[in-house]
Formats: sequence, structure tokens, C-alpha cells
Amino acid sequence: MSMMKGYAMLKIGETGWIEKERPTCGPNDAIIRPLALSPCTSDVHTVWEGALGDRHNMILGHEGCGEVVEVGSAVKDFKPGDRIMVAAITPDWMSLAAQDGYPMHSGGMLGGWKFSNFKDGVFGEYFHVNDADGNLAHLPDSISTAEACMLSDMIPTGFHGVELAEVSFGDNVLVIGIGPVGLMAVAGADLAGASNIICVGTRPVCVEAAKGYGGTHFVNYKDGPIDQQVLELTNGQGVDKIIIAGGDNDTFEEAVKCLRPGGKIGNVNYLGSGDYIKIPRIEWGVGMGHKRINGGLMPGGRLRLEKLARLIEVGKLDVKPMLTHRFEGFEHVEDALMLMKDKPRDLIKPVVVIEE
Amino acid sequence: MSMMKGYAMLKIGETGWIEKERPTCGPNDAIIRPLALSPCTSDVHTVWEGALGDRHNMILGHEGCGEVVEVGSAVKDFKPGDRIMVAAITPDWMSLAAQDGYPMHSGGMLGGWKFSNFKDGVFGEYFHVNDADGNLAHLPDSISTAEACMLSDMIPTGFHGVELAEVSFGDNVLVIGIGPVGLMAVAGADLAGASNIICVGTRPVCVEAAKGYGGTHFVNYKDGPIDQQVLELTNGQGVDKIIIAGGDNDTFEEAVKCLRPGGKIGNVNYLGSGDYIKIPRIEWGVGMGHKRINGGLMPGGRLRLEKLARLIEVGKLDVKPMLTHRFEGFEHVEDALMLMKDKPRDLIKPVVVIEE
Amino acid sequence: MSMMKGYAMLKIGETGWIEKERPTCGPNDAIIRPLALSPCTSDVHTVWEGALGDRHNMILGHEGCGEVVEVGSAVKDFKPGDRIMVAAITPDWMSLAAQDGYPMHSGGMLGGWKFSNFKDGVFGEYFHVNDADGNLAHLPDSISTAEACMLSDMIPTGFHGVELAEVSFGDNVLVIGIGPVGLMAVAGADLAGASNIICVGTRPVCVEAAKGYGGTHFVNYKDGPIDQQVLELTNGQGVDKIIIAGGDNDTFEEAVKCLRPGGKIGNVNYLGSGDYIKIPRIEWGVGMGHKRINGGLMPGGRLRLEKLARLIEVGKLDVKPMLTHRFEGFEHVEDALMLMKDKPRDLIKPVVVIEE
Amino acid sequence: MSMMKGYAMLKIGETGWIEKERPTCGPNDAIIRPLALSPCTSDVHTVWEGALGDRHNMILGHEGCGEVVEVGSAVKDFKPGDRIMVAAITPDWMSLAAQDGYPMHSGGMLGGWKFSNFKDGVFGEYFHVNDADGNLAHLPDSISTAEACMLSDMIPTGFHGVELAEVSFGDNVLVIGIGPVGLMAVAGADLAGASNIICVGTRPVCVEAAKGYGGTHFVNYKDGPIDQQVLELTNGQGVDKIIIAGGDNDTFEEAVKCLRPGGKIGNVNYLGSGDYIKIPRIEWGVGMGHKRINGGLMPGGRLRLEKLARLIEVGKLDVKPMLTHRFEGFEHVEDALMLMKDKPRDLIKPVVVIEE
Repeated sequence: MSMMKGYAMLKIGETGWIEKERPTCGPNDAIIRPLALSPCTSDVHTVWEGALGDRHNMILGHEGCGEVVEVGSAVKDFKPGDRIMVAAITPDWMSLAAQDGYPMHSGGMLGGWKFSNFKDGVFGEYFHVNDADGNLAHLPDSISTAEACMLSDMIPTGFHGVELAEVSFGDNVLVIGIGPVGLMAVAGADLAGASNIICVGTRPVCVEAAKGYGGTHFVNYKDGPIDQQVLELTNGQGVDKIIIAGGDNDTFEEAVKCLRPGGKIGNVNYLGSGDYIKIPRIEWGVGMGHKRINGGLMPGGRLRLEKLARLIEVGKLDVKPMLTHRFEGFEHVEDALMLMKDKPRDLIKPVVVIEE
Repeated sequence: MSMMKGYAMLKIGETGWIEKERPTCGPNDAIIRPLALSPCTSDVHTVWEGALGDRHNMILGHEGCGEVVEVGSAVKDFKPGDRIMVAAITPDWMSLAAQDGYPMHSGGMLGGWKFSNFKDGVFGEYFHVNDADGNLAHLPDSISTAEACMLSDMIPTGFHGVELAEVSFGDNVLVIGIGPVGLMAVAGADLAGASNIICVGTRPVCVEAAKGYGGTHFVNYKDGPIDQQVLELTNGQGVDKIIIAGGDNDTFEEAVKCLRPGGKIGNVNYLGSGDYIKIPRIEWGVGMGHKRINGGLMPGGRLRLEKLARLIEVGKLDVKPMLTHRFEGFEHVEDALMLMKDKPRDLIKPVVVIEE
Repeated sequence: MSMMKGYAMLKIGETGWIEKERPTCGPNDAIIRPLALSPCTSDVHTVWEGALGDRHNMILGHEGCGEVVEVGSAVKDFKPGDRIMVAAITPDWMSLAAQDGYPMHSGGMLGGWKFSNFKDGVFGEYFHVNDADGNLAHLPDSISTAEACMLSDMIPTGFHGVELAEVSFGDNVLVIGIGPVGLMAVAGADLAGASNIICVGTRPVCVEAAKGYGGTHFVNYKDGPIDQQVLELTNGQGVDKIIIAGGDNDTFEEAVKCLRPGGKIGNVNYLGSGDYIKIPRIEWGVGMGHKRINGGLMPGGRLRLEKLARLIEVGKLDVKPMLTHRFEGFEHVEDALMLMKDKPRDLIKPVVVIEE
Repeated sequence: MSMMKGYAMLKIGETGWIEKERPTCGPNDAIIRPLALSPCTSDVHTVWEGALGDRHNMILGHEGCGEVVEVGSAVKDFKPGDRIMVAAITPDWMSLAAQDGYPMHSGGMLGGWKFSNFKDGVFGEYFHVNDADGNLAHLPDSISTAEACMLSDMIPTGFHGVELAEVSFGDNVLVIGIGPVGLMAVAGADLAGASNIICVGTRPVCVEAAKGYGGTHFVNYKDGPIDQQVLELTNGQGVDKIIIAGGDNDTFEEAVKCLRPGGKIGNVNYLGSGDYIKIPRIEWGVGMGHKRINGGLMPGGRLRLEKLARLIEVGKLDVKPMLTHRFEGFEHVEDALMLMKDKPRDLIKPVVVIEE
């Protein structure tokens, strides 16, 4: 039995390096050796807030790229030695949910989220990918391994908010939260043809990056309710579309209040506590205002990886401004995670490069 | 100055016959003499619950059909003597909202709802219709004036719930509330290709009608939470789509709990009180379950009137089972409204026929 | 090596019984023993018109249901002894095309059509199904094996025409061709809320069935150009949506000519010869009339099988009027195919029942 | 009776200045004095190719902006002195076609195209706009009158091609024809999130502009069939979406041949001659390849003008590279049109500025 090292959640509130059996490879699976890795705020929530409930000795991480070391007998498009990208969400493509257009919910709601949730994550010397033909994509030469990590979660999640909100030509868009997911929502809204993009956020490093990604106006939630500031900026009309990439259950109240009738809200923020999302009755048109509310886990899959990667390849999306902190060597996964936990003023995303 | 009689809300909690000036006709308008009228539960809410706030001497009613007595200089497609249908919602077709696909929100959220809200309703000897070419439709010979009243609100509102929920082939659908709007939601879901249609309601007359319109299963909310009963009926899977045509803010909690990921909720129920719609965080997938929530006032307009009327003309939709109580003569508008208020056990909808 | 019998295309123009190796089962596959089978007009085209090019000793057939006799190691939801339905189109669910919403084109355009095209069909003692979890569905008790055959191709193909044409409430719809696929297009249009359904076809048995499925008007192409008759029936307005389930390349000319601007054409007819589909320039609005043209192979997959089957289960779709001819015993597959080839006046579909 | 001057088509092949009555203003109309004007290739087709049939003494032009000099009694949002934008297509917003989402076909297919087609165009001292509240938009201070002319037709037509083709994140897009409409299709595809944008065109001034608007690859149709070059550039896969903004009936053959299954074609090119659009049967998947074909006249309307203008206001769309030739003074309309006719090597669009 082959053993490997991994950086794991030992229990709620505690992390550390562990030794574990190397994952085994079923007929549709692949085993991957990481080339670059990045921690996510979700990893922080998982460990220190117990967001997923308790887990023991579970290897963390769901953002990374790597090299194929083994594939199952039914895998056709990948072979050992291939350099690959992989998304944080790895659906079962044979499921009813996938056929229904919701692969992320294969095996139950949010069931496509397997890494560091239902199985070990990517912060190991090796990690396991189900449905390899459907969930891996070849890493283009022109994309660095560090950049590829942003295709695991930040880009596809931020862009999914834009898809849920159905941003189209000339829309005035509000993006609530401009951490790394929110920044990618700004970039996605800009790439989807938004005109004014109002960003809610305060950290200077994020505001600066948001400007580069297409943000046109900035609102500080410390200056008063978001909705009031947004209504002022839009002459009382409200915005056409809203992407929620931060805040909490109460954020929906402010969002609904500054959305015009017929507008759409796309939430990609993990709502970690509380009982009810707050939808204000009056401003929601007493039930009839056509202010559509949706929220969704990002879709995974090879096609999406390939298509979003193309935007980097042709130079229309640049993730380098996101990569504020860089470590070299697998052993620095711990440092990167701790940095994410501490969230220094100048941090957007740390990345751990194992091989360029 | 020509005078006319009308049955009006005198103030909150009080109704009566009044004399008022006959409405005048602008260049795009028409003046109509009613041929049949029907009161709506909304009229009851307006008067006895003060749902729209206070109103004084406002003629009630938004369901009816009639005969054109006058048209404005810019009206092309209608002339005095034409028998017409008209929807409860009469948008401004020149508005930005109409160009955006949301005519019902022209002039502000819910602004297309003018009858017995921003202006006198249809319970007068004459009533006024704005944008006549866009808001009137010729009454086909094969549709009685009584049936035509159902095209003002019950059919288009119930069917809009089906549109908002995007019911498609084989869907398992839940319809919450089977008053007249809910019944039309059942009929609409059936016409949109639903397979199982689970109906929430208890009144025997409505249950019977719902069976005729395509309802396949019935749930009594007095037997326990709706979601539990629905999950039981669907082997724990939940339904694909939900139309809410009854209940209150808390109904959304039960709806979200028995909707599968990727499912859609369409609300057409007027939410009359309370501060917040309750969306349960966990069952809404901690914000990422793709359980889409929308609610909307029905669209109005001539095209919709014509298309929905065709369903009656070809015999694919029969509204006669809805018309449980019939009065003859304009003066019975008062009786019809009081019947709606009292809601006897065998009532679905009363109609007042002035001319066949 | 286990052998089996099958009814095959020997070469273009010739069919016969052959002995062949029983198919083998990969990790995601299933081997099925048929319980009922039905020949399709496509089988006739394949053999006697060489529509797919030459094939040698290829077992025919793509409509049937059966019993699982073997499953691969990665198959989770089916086991030997299960009674199953299967569609004519069996996509590769791990493909990019499936992730893109076009599973029928996995492995290249029309690549999801494998039975009696790229591999042996279902007219053998056993047949092979790829991606079993994605392509099989459990046969409900309330559906007979004969009825289940209609879920392989006739229902999903006819209904796909309705989906491509986006039929909605009150639409006036034209269905060109009322063979079995066209009949299911009529039924699908009716279930999608169409009002008038104009049917083009002449065989009395089909006209009679079409009336039962919701057809309201009938046009005989022998009485003149379809478009002229349809324009007459619609007061010169044309129809809202068109489903093409018969005819040839030139049929599109007639279709475009009687479709209103903004209308949509959904083709599900196999176009067997000729170089170009004819789209008339003037009536297509000199390129700008918004007369949308699409054509598509039906999607396959378990979800669709389950959802369409539900319509039969609840009694909203009855395929028995389609099953005009019935044989009992596997050996009658030959007779059924010859009947399909000869197309007697009273034939809609023959079915061969092996087990009820 | 007030007279005015205008530059007109006298008959096919002949143009000149004429005196004509100043247009009169109905209750929903506005009379506009032009501030800037631009000729369109359509004007050239109208006069010298007789594309619309014969016309006598019809004032030309449909691109321009201006100042309101008179409004009808029912107009609410505009008053004399307002500086306005107006689209080439001015629908009847009270029509069934508008309610159906196809305002450009109000009053019959292409009926929204009124300027220099069914009535005098904008090349007069005054021009008439129907449905002023629906068809005018206030000109923002930050947009010059010259730039505003591009919002009449070039931008909304090019962008409509992108909408018809449903370009989304990461798509590989082909734009056939990079005259001014094609250039705006390139810009629109880029703003809609396309990755690779392959442009078909040869004129250096256009190629240069296309690069600035997001074009990534260039194909010269003189180097061989478009489809072969595109298939080579895409490793035989074809593109995801195609916008046709040039060529003729035969162009569709090349387009279908290099479009992947599930791809979409949006045509915005006026097809001036020939009988049939050529859709190749085999490459169209024998009718079942899901290669969707649509073509449409651009929508008009105030909302669209406002939303597309916002893209210029925030600096995400720059039309200045389009405006290669500039004239000052109304009398130069003739020179501008002749320039458009002669099409010198360095021309993209000429504009005539009357007032800044």
C-alpha cells in the first residue's frame, strides 16, 4: 500500500500534515500529482468555522492543477504525463442532475463538490479525480500553473454569478463583495457587456484590482446601506443585475431594494449561518415585482475549463493581478493557508507553485 | 359633463354606489361599456384589508369585457361598437419597461395595474382603457361575455405562474393554492406538459375543479407541513417546479424545502403583509442550490389576450367550471362582490352578465 | 465465445438472420435482452436506400425495451433482472458535447446515434448499451413493453421538434408530416399549449390519430402548396411555429413562406438526399425576418426517458393508438420490418412483443 | 404650409436635392432637426441597386441624431430643444409584433424600417419620428453628435448579430464581413465574452480596426473557401458561433460547413438578390445537426439606444475608429453619400456634423 503526505484538517479548528494511503484509481478515474495549488476562503471556513461539520484527517484544498500519473481503463482522453487543469467541482457526468443541466448537484444538492468535502482534497502529494474525461482539461502551454489554479474556482464561480444574473449589453451591474470571487464577477460582468459596474468593497488592494477588471463605481458599506448608495448612483432607478459574492443572509435585503423590476440576482456566496435569507416583501413587489433570485454552485467540467481558459490564452482575461502572494514548493501549502486565514491587507490570493 | 354610476370603494372597509364623471378619452384611449364583469379577491383585499392603502370613491373592479363606445384619434384597430376583451393589467406600451419585456412594470413596479388602483376600475357604466390598440382585443364570437371575464385576470395570472416556473414536458409540479388563480395554474401546468400535478387546497369545489384541470394529487395543509407531504409523494426527490397561488410569506419556506436543486418557483400570489419572505438557508443550498425564485404580476396586452383566448376557442381550455355563480344585470355587481367577500362553500367565481 | 442470433442488414438492399458474437460489457456498459422491439422507417432507409452508406451484417433496430442481463463494474443504478427502457440515441455522457447540452452529438455530429449505425442495433437476442447509468431507465410497472418501444424514438423525436420550435401557450402550430414521429409532434405541441394545430398529411389512419392527439385542421399537400393553404387558414398571418416531420429539402421553402416573422421552425425529419435545403430569400425577410430555423437529432438519456414516461404513467399521453400492428415472438422482427417497408394503408407502427 | 430641403432618391440610380413639405406631427410623434447624419451602404443599395424597388423623391438616410423641434400631444418624455438619438428602425410600440418581442416587424415583416423606405428619411432639414416616447432617447453630454450616428444602425445591427448567435463566455466566433456592421459585430462578440474571433475581410483599414475591437485571427476569402480556412484554424472543430455581416446567399454554405453541431448563426446582412439561401444538407447534419440559423433586422427603441449608449459613456466601446471621414454642414450630405458609394480604400464611415 503506497503512502503519501497531505495537509489536512485534523478536526474543527486544527490542521496539520498527515500520512495517508495514496488514492486508488477506478475505471473512470485519474490520479494527479499537483503542479500548483491555492487555498480558498472555503478551506478557512471548513477548518476554523466548521462550515461543513466536523471532518477528521481530511486533506484540504480544491484549487490546483497537476500532472496525470494514472488513469482508469475507461478513460480515453488523458494519459500519464499529461498536464491538466481541474475544477473544484467534479460532477458525476452519468447522473440525472448532469442531464438536467445541473451537474454540480449530481448525487444530491451540492453533491458535485467532492474535494475536501466528501473526499480528500488536492493538498496531497497525489489527488483523485472522478470521471476524468469529463472533469480534466489539458493545460495549454501559454497558461502558467499558477494561473491555472484560478480556473479551479475563482474564475468559474465569479463568472457563474454573471451567468445567473444574465448580464447583457449595457446593463448596470452591482457586484457585492470584491474578494477574489467578486473580482472575477466584475471581470465576468465586464466581459458580458455590462456598462456601469458598481462594486461594494473596501480593501484598497481589491478596489485597485476591481478597477482593472472593469469596475466603474465603488461603494463602501460602512458609508450606509448599500441600497441607498446604489439608488443614489442610479438616479433612483436601481441596477439591472446584481451578483452577490460576499455578505450574508441580510445582504439580499439590500440587493432587492436596489434592483429594478425585471432585474436578476445571482448569488455565488456561501451562506454560512442563520436560518432565513431575508427578502423584503414590499420592495420585492409584494411578490410580483419580477425581481428574480437565484444562487448556485459553479458548474464544473472540462468544457467550461477549456472555454474559460481560452479567455486567458487570447489575453482577454488576466489573472496575474489576483496572484498577490507566491510560494514555491509543496511544503508551503501550510503557509499559504495560514496567510489566507490571516488575510493581510495586501492579499488577494496566494499560490503555491510546485512546478512552473 | 356626462355623469355615470359606478360601484366604488368609499374608504377602507366601505363600499357603495356613486355618481361620477364619465371618463374622457385621450388620443390613444378607448371608453368601454361593460358587457360582463367579475369581482376578484383583490377587490376584497383592497376594500376590507386596505391592501393598496386608502382610496376614496374609487370605482372597483378589474375583470370584465365590454363594447367600445369611443376611441381616441390615434387608435387604429378598434372602433365604437366593437366587442372587446381587456386584461386587468393595462401597460403603457411606449415605456422602457415594455421594451424590456416587463410591460406590467411600466411607470414603476406594478405600474401596469391601473384599474381600481391608480384610476377607476371597470365596475362603472363606462370605463377607460389606456393604449387601446395595445390593451384591447376583439372578443371572438365563440366566447361568451362571461367566459371573457376569466381572460382578464384568472387565466393570465395562473398561466404566468406556469411561465415563471418554466414548466416543461414531464415535470412534476406543485401548485400551492387552488382558488381560481391556482386552478388556472393547474390548467396551465397541464397545458405546458406537466406530468404529476400536486395541488394544495381543501375546498371540495376547488378540488373537484382541479381534478378536471389536470391535478393528479392533493395535499391538505391541515395534515402537516406541505413540504413533508410533497417529499413523501415524490420519494424524497421533491418537485421540479412550484407555482405559488396562495398562502403567505412563510409559504416560500415550505416551497423551497420540497423543490429539487435546479427547480424553479413562480409566485403569482399577492403577499399582503409581513416584512420578509422566508427563504430557508439550508434547504436553499446555503445560497448555491439553484432553486430559482421569481414572482411576477401578469403581463397584460392584446397579444396575450388573443393567444389565451384561442385556447378557449379550440376547446383546449374550458372556464365554465370556474363560473359557479351567475348574476344578470349591472346592478348585481354589488351582490357579486359581497359573495366574493363571503366566499360560500360552493363558490369559485361569480360573474355578472350585462349582455351575453 | 457466446453466440447469438440477430436480424441484420447484410448489405444495401438485403436483410437476413445472422449469427454473431454476443456483445461484451465494458465497465460502464450493460447487456440487454429485448422484451419488445419496433422497426422504424429509418431502418427501411438504412437498408433499402443505403441512407447511412453500406453496412455489412449489421444488426438492425433502435427501438425497444428489455431486461438487463449484465452490467459493468462502474454501473451503479442497474443490475441484472431490471426491466429497462432505452432510447435510440445513447450519448457518451462524459463528452464535451454532453456538457454543452448537445449529447446527441457526442463523438461528432449525430455521434450519439450508435444503434444500427456505428454498432449493432437492438434486433438481436442481446444488445449492448454504453454508459448504462446515463442511458437506461427503469421501466415503470404501468407501462407495457409495447408502449415502452415508443419511448425509444417516436415520442422523444416528435417532442424534440416541439422543443426546437419552442411551442408555447396559444401558439398556432403547423406540423408537416403525420407519420408516427409527426403524430408525436402533434401530441407534443398539444401538451405544450398550442391552440390550433394544422397537420399536413393524407393517410386516413394518421389523420384519425392526429385528431385524437390534438390536431385541429388538416391540409393535404395534394391540394396545392402547403404555404398557400396555411396562409388561407390563418388569414394571411401564417403560423407561429412549425415542426417538420416529413417531406424533403424543398419542404423548408413552404414552411418559411407560411411562418410569421419571429416564428420558429424545428426540423426532426431525416433529409436523405439532395444538396441544399431551400430557404426562400424574400420570404425569409431578405435575411432579416427572424424566422428561425433549427433541426436536431433527439437527445437521449435517462432523465428524458423518465420524464416522458411519466406522461404515459399519469394518462396524459396514450401511445396505444400508434400501435396498429402487433406481433408476438422475437422471430417476428422480420415480419414487422417488412410491414414497415410495405407500409399498408392501416399501419402506423408495428411492435414485436417478446414478453409483456 | 412650411417647406424644407432634403437630399433624396429621385428614382432608381438618381439622387438630388429637393424641396418638400415639412413633415407634420401626430399626437405620438416628434419632428427633429438633424445635428449629425451618416449615410449607410443601404442608402447606396436603395438608390443604385433599387433594393427596395422604385421610389420617387424620397428623402434618404436613416442614421443621425438631432434636436426636437415639435412633439405631439401624447408625448411625455421629450420636448422641443431636447437633443436626441434615434435608431434607424422605429417600431410601432402598440403593435402585436412589439408585444411578441419583435418590434422591428410591427406592421408586417421588416415594417419597423420606415426611414427612407416607407417614408422620408433623415437627410432633410427636418424629419419625422413616430412613437417618440418609444423611439427617441436623450443624447448624453459625453457622446458627440458624430458618435451618436453610430448608435442609429451600425452598433445595434452589429450587436444584434451577436445576440442572434448567442455568443457567450469563451466562444470561438467567426464574423463574416468586417465593414462597419461587421466591425461592430466583432466589438459586440468581444464584449459578450468571446475568446477567439476570426474575421473574414480584406480591406486593411477594416482589418486594423477589427484588431482594435477584439479580432484575433483574419481570413481572406480570396485565399480559398472560408470554411476550409476556419476548420484549419480550429483543428477541424469549427467555431461555436457565427455572425454574418457580409457576403450573399452562398455565404451560408461556408458558414454551416465550419460551424460545430450545436452552434448558432446570426445573420444581419441584407440579402439583395437570388432565390434561395443555400444550406448544405450533409453539413447541416441531414437536418439534425443543431446548427441553428437565424437572421434579423435590428430591434429599435429607446431602451436599446440608452443601454448601448452607456457602453460608449463608460468607455467600453469607442466608435471613433469607425469615423474615418468627417464633413461639416448639412449641405455635405451629398458628398458623404457619394463617398459611401465610391468606397475609397481608407473609408469605414463618413459622418456629416451639423452641430457638435
